[in-house]
Amino acid sequence: MPRQAAAALERLRLATPLVHNITNVVVANVTANALLAVGASPAMVQAEEEVADFAPHAAALVVNIGTLTAPQLRAMRRAVPAARAAGVPWVLDPVAAGATPFRLAAAQEMAALRPAVLRGNASEILAVAGEAGLASRGVDSAHPTAMAHAAAARLARALGITVAVTGAVDHVTDGERAVAVANGHPLLTRVTGMGCTATALIGAFLGAGLPGMAAAVAGLATLGVAAERAAGQACGPGSFQVALLDALHALEAPALAASARLAPAPAGG
Amino acid sequence: MPRQAAAALERLRLATPLVHNITNVVVANVTANALLAVGASPAMVQAEEEVADFAPHAAALVVNIGTLTAPQLRAMRRAVPAARAAGVPWVLDPVAAGATPFRLAAAQEMAALRPAVLRGNASEILAVAGEAGLASRGVDSAHPTAMAHAAAARLARALGITVAVTGAVDHVTDGERAVAVANGHPLLTRVTGMGCTATALIGAFLGAGLPGMAAAVAGLATLGVAAERAAGQACGPGSFQVALLDALHALEAPALAASARLAPAPAGG
Amino acid sequence: MPRQAAAALERLRLATPLVHNITNVVVANVTANALLAVGASPAMVQAEEEVADFAPHAAALVVNIGTLTAPQLRAMRRAVPAARAAGVPWVLDPVAAGATPFRLAAAQEMAALRPAVLRGNASEILAVAGEAGLASRGVDSAHPTAMAHAAAARLARALGITVAVTGAVDHVTDGERAVAVANGHPLLTRVTGMGCTATALIGAFLGAGLPGMAAAVAGLATLGVAAERAAGQACGPGSFQVALLDALHALEAPALAASARLAPAPAGG
Repeated sequence: MPRQAAAALERLRLATPLVHNITNVVVANVTANALLAVGASPAMVQAEEEVADFAPHAAALVVNIGTLTAPQLRAMRRAVPAARAAGVPWVLDPVAAGATPFRLAAAQEMAALRPAVLRGNASEILAVAGEAGLASRGVDSAHPTAMAHAAAARLARALGITVAVTGAVDHVTDGERAVAVANGHPLLTRVTGMGCTATALIGAFLGAGLPGMAAAVAGLATLGVAAERAAGQACGPGSFQVALLDALHALEAPALAASARLAPAPAGG
Repeated sequence: MPRQAAAALERLRLATPLVHNITNVVVANVTANALLAVGASPAMVQAEEEVADFAPHAAALVVNIGTLTAPQLRAMRRAVPAARAAGVPWVLDPVAAGATPFRLAAAQEMAALRPAVLRGNASEILAVAGEAGLASRGVDSAHPTAMAHAAAARLARALGITVAVTGAVDHVTDGERAVAVANGHPLLTRVTGMGCTATALIGAFLGAGLPGMAAAVAGLATLGVAAERAAGQACGPGSFQVALLDALHALEAPALAASARLAPAPAGG
Repeated sequence: MPRQAAAALERLRLATPLVHNITNVVVANVTANALLAVGASPAMVQAEEEVADFAPHAAALVVNIGTLTAPQLRAMRRAVPAARAAGVPWVLDPVAAGATPFRLAAAQEMAALRPAVLRGNASEILAVAGEAGLASRGVDSAHPTAMAHAAAARLARALGITVAVTGAVDHVTDGERAVAVANGHPLLTRVTGMGCTATALIGAFLGAGLPGMAAAVAGLATLGVAAERAAGQACGPGSFQVALLDALHALEAPALAASARLAPAPAGG
């Protein structure tokens, strides 16, 4: 599998895919720079008046609800069908989906439109799956990660999509198969927007023509390996963020193949 | 007093408070990263549809009018009462309050809702106090800092809040007592969002359970000491901003106690 | 000409012009920091309720359509006439003008209001000039740069403005004269917002009292020389972005005079 991720990275670098992002104001700059560093071409186009005109010309669409507003939700409702109609794959990041009813409704509405990949942390995936209530009431609360993996498998099968649950070890599943991605570094949790960056990179690999499972695994492995290299250069979260962009830019396919820690995992659910 | 600030930092690190930010698009990323670096957990939630659902679950709320729009003002009008009703403390940053009538009206409307802490520079505090006109007409114009300190004391007493006036030496007052914070570095004025970062850090200390005066003093001392350390590593404003996040992350309570320059000051007014 | 650019930089540093930016959410932080680093004073004020009150007090106005929304377009329609009425020069950045009809209409509407300087890449200038269709249909498609330079000259004459076409070599023209600016570094294309930063710096030079041609040449030379110096310190796009702010801050007039590569160019068109 590491060699497939490395081949995907080479493919991305040749394709320089145009990635259309409808994303939050906190990470817009960070994810645009990560996309540029890895070799993609980002475009941040978010007005409801224009997203449907733009999305069909992109190689992939990234939809992120991190600082969702009503106008931005209307834009997403126009962009996603336009992308689908044009055969443009898209990825959904349901940031903090369980935090408010507004956000949960939007995340579930978008998930039902069947993105190629849905990426979130355990809480977000449980929320989108409608299983956060069970978790918060303490059912199997000692194993939120296992619960989220099982919820991911059910979501993936129900929608026919790939679901990626990120954490200390990332878990990618299409409901039948699953892959664990064991790269990364704790400093990723001390910089804002790293989950959103994972989603954007998955968008870049979708834009390079990879199917959902392969795009999600390649995106998460690329970010994780780059993070490991960046952490070796960093004195804290500020210098880590800088070194991460340098590492994404410098990462070559053979190094990714050598460092990616990928393994089959139980699909669960 | 330095030992109290150090104890506050230890308390913050244990509490990892969830800080809800309704803030401006220029600094959203910067303040989220500063909150993560210092040990808090930031959430940027700004839609009027959801802020009242989210604010009660936060440990503190930060309201910043830096790029205020009408929808964002409506969100603030919902978030603040929801936070107050739930006993969640909040801090107000009246960015450029005197620059336009729209901004001044919003800043004064928010201040009247009695934040735990109001933080601004001398001009902003004078504007909120309704005394900017006197300053601009030259009354005591040779002493804008002294004027702002006096206005801060009057505002603090009238509203029953803590007011922090930041500058070369910061001044924190509840109208009866005042503390001078003499940390910091000139490079703080060459990077955007450093005042907003001070406000966000004050929010983190409020979220850790500190009362207004203690939270403001601890927040400003923490930023000031981290800035001094970062400046020693920096070659200019770019590397300073990076080193500041590293320094916030690395700063330990004993170092803060040793470096904080805090002194009682005349309350004035 | 290098000495004129150097004199312009000295003038900017003395004037510390207040630059009002109505800009996109991706680059707001980056351009504010670049303006601070070079010696200007940025203000990001974008609400339609207040821009007309603020713009007359600025030294220059920057209008950037990178993440244009309908409310932001209404704000631009209020800010530009207010700036013009007060004699405040302004610069337009028609980001991705050709990407959608919404964006193209806005860019052309704004350009017709005659900014002191219009800055874009070759595609953007061709779009604003209404000549992108010819390019995309392959007319002279082997020479898009030459086509854009010709279109720039026609636009400049028709509107009585300065047009800057940025690329590997930048081209600045008022329709009669033209100057080539041959500074810069390929890493500028691997960091988001560098074109927007060029536009913001041109705004700073306009705010220092320079006329359009001189402001555009000085802004592009300053960014280009700073980029060359930053690239010498950088390990990739992350560290380049940091080093660029340091270099803008450290750049002195004699160094700019020594390193600026400026030459007369055929005005074309």
